Amino acid sequence: MNNRVLVWALAGIPEVKPGYDLALLIEDALHADGGLLVDGDILVVTSKIVSKAEGRIVQAADREDAITAETVRVVATGTRPDGGVTRIVQNRLGIVGAAAGVDSSNTEEGTVLLLPLDPDASARVLAGELRRSLGVRVGVVISDTLGRPWRDGQTDVAIGAAGVRVFDKLQGLRDSAGRTMTVTQPCVGDELAAAGDLVKGKLSRSPVAVVRGMGRLVGELDLPGAASIVRDAKRDLFRIGTDEAHRAGYEEGFAAGYAAGRGEDQR
Amino acid sequence: MNNRVLVWALAGIPEVKPGYDLALLIEDALHADGGLLVDGDILVVTSKIVSKAEGRIVQAADREDAITAETVRVVATGTRPDGGVTRIVQNRLGIVGAAAGVDSSNTEEGTVLLLPLDPDASARVLAGELRRSLGVRVGVVISDTLGRPWRDGQTDVAIGAAGVRVFDKLQGLRDSAGRTMTVTQPCVGDELAAAGDLVKGKLSRSPVAVVRGMGRLVGELDLPGAASIVRDAKRDLFRIGTDEAHRAGYEEGFAAGYAAGRGEDQR
Repeated sequence: MNNRVLVWALAGIPEVKPGYDLALLIEDALHADGGLLVDGDILVVTSKIVSKAEGRIVQAADREDAITAETVRVVATGTRPDGGVTRIVQNRLGIVGAAAGVDSSNTEEGTVLLLPLDPDASARVLAGELRRSLGVRVGVVISDTLGRPWRDGQTDVAIGAAGVRVFDKLQGLRDSAGRTMTVTQPCVGDELAAAGDLVKGKLSRSPVAVVRGMGRLVGELDLPGAASIVRDAKRDLFRIGTDEAHRAGYEEGFAAGYAAGRGEDQR
Repeated sequence: MNNRVLVWALAGIPEVKPGYDLALLIEDALHADGGLLVDGDILVVTSKIVSKAEGRIVQAADREDAITAETVRVVATGTRPDGGVTRIVQNRLGIVGAAAGVDSSNTEEGTVLLLPLDPDASARVLAGELRRSLGVRVGVVISDTLGRPWRDGQTDVAIGAAGVRVFDKLQGLRDSAGRTMTVTQPCVGDELAAAGDLVKGKLSRSPVAVVRGMGRLVGELDLPGAASIVRDAKRDLFRIGTDEAHRAGYEEGFAAGYAAGRGEDQR
């Protein structure tokens, strides 16, 4: 029998409030679930409950200000079918997504949630506490839901990780024909988040999934976190949106063309 | 106990050659695996073996020509760290990715593989044959590996699908606070492909994964396929790369600026 992976959502996680101890909530849910974690298990935790536990809550009236405050760089803006404006931005964490991760679904009425301050650190604390109290070597992925260019809909990706490799090491290995595979580097962190989303769902309160059978990815707590997934914008072929880049180019081109038209020296 | 999903790779799929019957190969592998499919199972099939069975093989010397032939639209070009040029293109299927999906890993020496001609149709044939011969209602996802903007590494996504919903229907449903969720539309097709990749791996010959426990997504064979995931480029904020858009804008701006500088009437 090949690699078998079991993925399930933990039942019994209550509505999370600021200051709650997520490790304790997860341990209680595991007891109620009748299950125990084993070495190599990976927990996929929806960032929303991490934000709630960390008190990353602001008034909904301040939503646009919150997005602005979380934004490091505007990547693109677009008009939605409903007439609203979507801001695709790079946030403090380097993550490019709509609304800087500011979330207004499944939140208390009148409030919105910011992303955790440092999801890799949150994952490290949670994984460390679970390893100590349960005596098992587990990994933690903190997931968020992101749209993407060119494809409709969203998928869950890893925005925090600890004790688990977020990239599978294929670089330098050989494929079955003996050739070196230099380019492929599967982002298993994002794939774990996606697998977790299949069982967690967005409507039910199942913010934690367990992935069992991927223990080969689990390691020390100081493995590179999900921040290592973020590509440096300077290396990105899509660092700003098409309209934004076109506009910037037009302005530069107009200035240069105007000067040339007036016969000014362009050296 | 909540939703439990089991994902495993089918052992015993041989090297696929042009003309092979994938449904038969999968049935043989299922027998050897000692398992049977049940209603609601979803098979995640690496596009590579579909391409091989369909004979979508060309000589490696013709690789660049093949990419050009598969390309509908160049989205962006960039220089790789190794000095080579990456072409991000939209291919016949509408999918935006590097090298138009032309694949030179795990192929016979001196050859490269093109994507299946119509992966949704291939999935429909495969799902139909398996449903008929095994008497179970299964879904099929055909997966390929894609890079993405802003995040390093690759994940597997759905490029073909039959008998399975590729989007989860959340539009119009209410979240746990009673608000309508209008925007979220999880692309479960891509998430199934990602979950399959976790067990299939890229180095071993395990091109088929079974996902059990997501039967709620399985339906009629004529459900919209993976083509429905592809966003119309006109609606995309990143329809061409930053450099390409900047250059086009610069040229337009220069022409307009030059005319203005010479005092020509711009009306």
